[in-house]
Amino acid sequence: MASNSFGQLFRITTWGESHGPAIGVVIDGCPAGIAITEAEINVALAQRAPGRHALTSPRKEPDEARIYSGVWEGKTTGTPVSIIIMNQDVDSSPYEAMKSILRPGHASFTYLKKYGHYDHRGGGRASARETACRVAAGVLAKKIIATQGIQTCAYLHAIHDLCTQPHTTMDELIPALRASSIFCPEPLIEAQMLARLSATQATGDSLGGVVTFLATGLPAGLGDPIYEKIEANLAHAMLSIPASKGFEIGEGFGAAMMHGSEHNDGFRSDLTTRTNHAGGTLAGVTTGMPLYGQVAFKPTSSINQAQQTTDVIGNPRTWHLPPGSRHDPCVAIRAVPVVDAMCALVLADALLMHRTAQMEFSF
Amino acid sequence: MASNSFGQLFRITTWGESHGPAIGVVIDGCPAGIAITEAEINVALAQRAPGRHALTSPRKEPDEARIYSGVWEGKTTGTPVSIIIMNQDVDSSPYEAMKSILRPGHASFTYLKKYGHYDHRGGGRASARETACRVAAGVLAKKIIATQGIQTCAYLHAIHDLCTQPHTTMDELIPALRASSIFCPEPLIEAQMLARLSATQATGDSLGGVVTFLATGLPAGLGDPIYEKIEANLAHAMLSIPASKGFEIGEGFGAAMMHGSEHNDGFRSDLTTRTNHAGGTLAGVTTGMPLYGQVAFKPTSSINQAQQTTDVIGNPRTWHLPPGSRHDPCVAIRAVPVVDAMCALVLADALLMHRTAQMEFSF
Amino acid sequence: MASNSFGQLFRITTWGESHGPAIGVVIDGCPAGIAITEAEINVALAQRAPGRHALTSPRKEPDEARIYSGVWEGKTTGTPVSIIIMNQDVDSSPYEAMKSILRPGHASFTYLKKYGHYDHRGGGRASARETACRVAAGVLAKKIIATQGIQTCAYLHAIHDLCTQPHTTMDELIPALRASSIFCPEPLIEAQMLARLSATQATGDSLGGVVTFLATGLPAGLGDPIYEKIEANLAHAMLSIPASKGFEIGEGFGAAMMHGSEHNDGFRSDLTTRTNHAGGTLAGVTTGMPLYGQVAFKPTSSINQAQQTTDVIGNPRTWHLPPGSRHDPCVAIRAVPVVDAMCALVLADALLMHRTAQMEFSF
Amino acid sequence: MASNSFGQLFRITTWGESHGPAIGVVIDGCPAGIAITEAEINVALAQRAPGRHALTSPRKEPDEARIYSGVWEGKTTGTPVSIIIMNQDVDSSPYEAMKSILRPGHASFTYLKKYGHYDHRGGGRASARETACRVAAGVLAKKIIATQGIQTCAYLHAIHDLCTQPHTTMDELIPALRASSIFCPEPLIEAQMLARLSATQATGDSLGGVVTFLATGLPAGLGDPIYEKIEANLAHAMLSIPASKGFEIGEGFGAAMMHGSEHNDGFRSDLTTRTNHAGGTLAGVTTGMPLYGQVAFKPTSSINQAQQTTDVIGNPRTWHLPPGSRHDPCVAIRAVPVVDAMCALVLADALLMHRTAQMEFSF
Repeated sequence: MASNSFGQLFRITTWGESHGPAIGVVIDGCPAGIAITEAEINVALAQRAPGRHALTSPRKEPDEARIYSGVWEGKTTGTPVSIIIMNQDVDSSPYEAMKSILRPGHASFTYLKKYGHYDHRGGGRASARETACRVAAGVLAKKIIATQGIQTCAYLHAIHDLCTQPHTTMDELIPALRASSIFCPEPLIEAQMLARLSATQATGDSLGGVVTFLATGLPAGLGDPIYEKIEANLAHAMLSIPASKGFEIGEGFGAAMMHGSEHNDGFRSDLTTRTNHAGGTLAGVTTGMPLYGQVAFKPTSSINQAQQTTDVIGNPRTWHLPPGSRHDPCVAIRAVPVVDAMCALVLADALLMHRTAQMEFSF
Repeated sequence: MASNSFGQLFRITTWGESHGPAIGVVIDGCPAGIAITEAEINVALAQRAPGRHALTSPRKEPDEARIYSGVWEGKTTGTPVSIIIMNQDVDSSPYEAMKSILRPGHASFTYLKKYGHYDHRGGGRASARETACRVAAGVLAKKIIATQGIQTCAYLHAIHDLCTQPHTTMDELIPALRASSIFCPEPLIEAQMLARLSATQATGDSLGGVVTFLATGLPAGLGDPIYEKIEANLAHAMLSIPASKGFEIGEGFGAAMMHGSEHNDGFRSDLTTRTNHAGGTLAGVTTGMPLYGQVAFKPTSSINQAQQTTDVIGNPRTWHLPPGSRHDPCVAIRAVPVVDAMCALVLADALLMHRTAQMEFSF
Repeated sequence: MASNSFGQLFRITTWGESHGPAIGVVIDGCPAGIAITEAEINVALAQRAPGRHALTSPRKEPDEARIYSGVWEGKTTGTPVSIIIMNQDVDSSPYEAMKSILRPGHASFTYLKKYGHYDHRGGGRASARETACRVAAGVLAKKIIATQGIQTCAYLHAIHDLCTQPHTTMDELIPALRASSIFCPEPLIEAQMLARLSATQATGDSLGGVVTFLATGLPAGLGDPIYEKIEANLAHAMLSIPASKGFEIGEGFGAAMMHGSEHNDGFRSDLTTRTNHAGGTLAGVTTGMPLYGQVAFKPTSSINQAQQTTDVIGNPRTWHLPPGSRHDPCVAIRAVPVVDAMCALVLADALLMHRTAQMEFSF
Repeated sequence: MASNSFGQLFRITTWGESHGPAIGVVIDGCPAGIAITEAEINVALAQRAPGRHALTSPRKEPDEARIYSGVWEGKTTGTPVSIIIMNQDVDSSPYEAMKSILRPGHASFTYLKKYGHYDHRGGGRASARETACRVAAGVLAKKIIATQGIQTCAYLHAIHDLCTQPHTTMDELIPALRASSIFCPEPLIEAQMLARLSATQATGDSLGGVVTFLATGLPAGLGDPIYEKIEANLAHAMLSIPASKGFEIGEGFGAAMMHGSEHNDGFRSDLTTRTNHAGGTLAGVTTGMPLYGQVAFKPTSSINQAQQTTDVIGNPRTWHLPPGSRHDPCVAIRAVPVVDAMCALVLADALLMHRTAQMEFSF
């Protein structure tokens, strides 16, 4: 099935391979009248770009998005917004020599089984480069929800066993994140993380991490029972990000270690809750409290160490990065803006959907 | 939007409230020729029924499913299968006195905000009773995937801090689960869990838990990049279950604590992998290794203790269970067959979808 | 794929066979707060019921709909509305003797090829009985659009070469249709039609017909470019009705015989158009002028004459109606309320969708 | 909702405005392994290009499609195929002076009402230029169905009252169409049509027309009851083409003038039917007989005559083509390849879907 789309009313469709001429996204269902510029998209793309700090992989081109349709005189028109990002750094020759080897942790084996062939050039469609399209679309999603006062952000909560405190105050988070090259809001932890990253990179190995997402300013009522619960759509969104392995809303797995008397969030006279263990959702619908949760990322599969594996017909082979390659010691860092974008996409969709829930709403 | 459906090619639509006359499910897209009986569905329903062991809530009626369409002479016909389960125990009067109180951890507040009213009778549509429909549909899904040699199961991995070992061998699990009233495969842990449940119930409190799902016999190739990854659809499925708060595939959040050199699963000459940290999926597509993961459940929100909250206009109120009620001290137990059913539904859909991936497949 | 659903935001899913225990419809996406009763649905069902006049087929039971969910204290709750209609007159024995014969014009051959078997009992799922579910759902759709001042109706425009004038004034049409047993608004034509029907029925033969649909009170702006044009969705809806063979919007095929200077509808100072050749839609979006068009129906396939055909393995056979059967000489008559319901379903969906088109709309 | 996509399993999403930098289509769900080149797409685009014969509008650039993703080493990979066509002839200045005038028969009024603004540049998104994307996608669809021996074509059946005979033999049609600049298979009728077109163009007026579609080599069994009937999807597809006003399958409206004894197609010993009044479908599923039908097109709305209309606030205005413009006297001609493409798209989708209907099919 058409599996390269996400969202119902605010729907993105992405296309493109890491080593093809370009990647792109078509955003369908964007309401008319949203002001948007290419410059704004490029600022967002720079956030997730490789090479942002010394430790991520060094694809050096600045991503430049061009809007090909759906925007006229600076505003969306209601027609599909097509955004294209050219690929500039696409030497796939280093991969030629290893094209029949099954890279551990990569799509090579499963795509081969699914499609009967495999595009070995740097990950092809399965490359994280696809996520640039999500970040571009996320810019529009964030503008839509901002019209209702909703803000989202994401930060690097943990690398391996180094982790931050929980943060739910947007006003403090935003400037803190701006000051960090790895989206970590706590300078002391950030310093430890950077040291750990350097040390691990020196060994050629990689590290897993955890990203926290947060949304504030939400009205109560977003999300649709039973199968379009806000947390179900968020979980779907987050597990569609390459390398993600887990999702939590609110206390998440921690809730499994709590008692009901502790976890239940009682209401106050202003109809907010005293605590927010639930993470801003009850029965799949937002409560108006901050929506937050976490996404786990596995350690980068591409490591600079020899790995024992086989070729496509089972002959033992050793896989190693092409000579001269550098690798990204922790994919969770570059995943931060993607997690944020996916959260915004889910909320934009839910917001448009919510307008159909009650007949008394004015048309 | 139509939010009461799940799946694309094998699609279920559920309807009904806990205190209405009946609940039901329409299964659309079921291939013709699958043998199915009402008795088989009733066996599955008995698994998740309340009252199965002494500690779950005591709604005593045996659920009886009736097939109203789509099956003829014992086999599916290709037309929609409509299954209806009558509600027999629907006294909603105990809830009348408390109907304007916002129950902590329940849908009352959010449904009110979403729809402008709230059906207070025992949870209404948000009640876990809806999950009986998923279990009924799961029986058909399990039969579809069984035609290709795929089996699924789920078990209770943890209640609070009491947890089992990981299990990935279906042959041992199935009989062990049959012997347990709480779906726990390890008798020693089961005994501890039962003791903890009794003790907690005596205090009126509740406990969270974790359920593990497992599927074996899978071909490589199921799941569709980018947004219909098998783990994305599983996450969506699991977070749509009432009270679920987290999802993991493979090592899950544990992967965030690993190094790449440790997490990567190298291939062997038979194209299986030496380890299976990934949990049977790479880049969203099954590898053929066992698919496994976990789902976290919060402690039951209905506790037998007074809770401070408000009514719908913010007046302070105390919520307590209606006199004479009993409560379910751990919803994770009854969620086990639901987790299993959702896993089967995701796989049935992916299996049908997979037939369209390569043109060389025979029609 | 799940092919038994229609609509996106206001979505119906129908189930059931003509000779099974019941048929039903689940309506998902209905906004909360719509007043609805079973009695209102039954009035609508009586319109399409067989046996309404002397000439349609004589299945005599009064259809009685029961609402099983989604309505509480007389109003929709926002949860799925499940409506079930029991089948009371289901003797399938007359069809036993002919079960291997391919009935000309029926689903027997194509369903056999699609599903590998065929439910021969009176048409099974392909029976027009399924359309009762559409009429039931149409009652809710009509109520939704009525909140915005939109009304729909349909009438019998033609049987064979006997046809009415075009009608676009709802105030005259509604009482005229109430007075006619065959939904024909012109008494003189109705009399000729009834005479023709009697004469044809006497020969055992059947007649084709044409139904006109009409909607008034529409705002400009409903319908979504490019592939959800209002006329595209109407065409889809109408061609999903059993026995339908053609669809026109506005002048339809007549437009192919016009010049541009004649067909173009110029605007007036009140932004209505002088003429309405377009039928109330431009580029797929409503203009606010009356929406109208036609649907062609083939003559009833079941005729009371011997027909030369074969059995499922190609042996020559003669097909005739079971002894004692009566047949419906013109299916277009009973299709009238179905056409009306489908029009209302399309408009309800488009109305809900329209709320997402502009950001300036208040939430 | 995302309304710029068509199809379920084989799904196209189009984007772009006539006066923007480019238009494009993303084809999702295309099976891996289909050989395709840009040259093949360009040949198809040349068929619908303006300027193909003296009488269509003179946008002179040759459309050149570029494949940006989803094809590697000459074959589809299973990932989305992104095709982009640059716009080269986009002087929108002639429209500036008239930008506030409501063009009769155009999208200006309805898009304004829907989106709160209007892109006046030559039709914007509502321009028929969007159909080039459908033709490009149709090339892939035709290749998919050709793997199963299915062929489609379309021809110009009528301009105003000049019409051809019915044609259902692909072998004669294909070369006849290749020889005609207006897709008319009968040279004598073609000559009359060309003369009529010239005469009408001289007056500045335009003409309606009818296009016939035809598909042969079909297996029995394509199409899905109830709401995805093959004729319902075809009707949806055809009414989504700009300027289309009607759809018929088989005898279409002619069936309304027939008796059942005449219309019913009896089976022969080879399980084909003696006649094919049904047009190759019974109960929404293909019979294996040729699938055929017709699509009506209104006369071109842009005529070279002054037309009385208003501006957006109701002031009387006269609309005329910008000086020096030429106009297309009959849009039905250029619609022929679009009708053919839409037929192929519907069949490709139905073909992929059909693989899920029976469990006995091998995986």
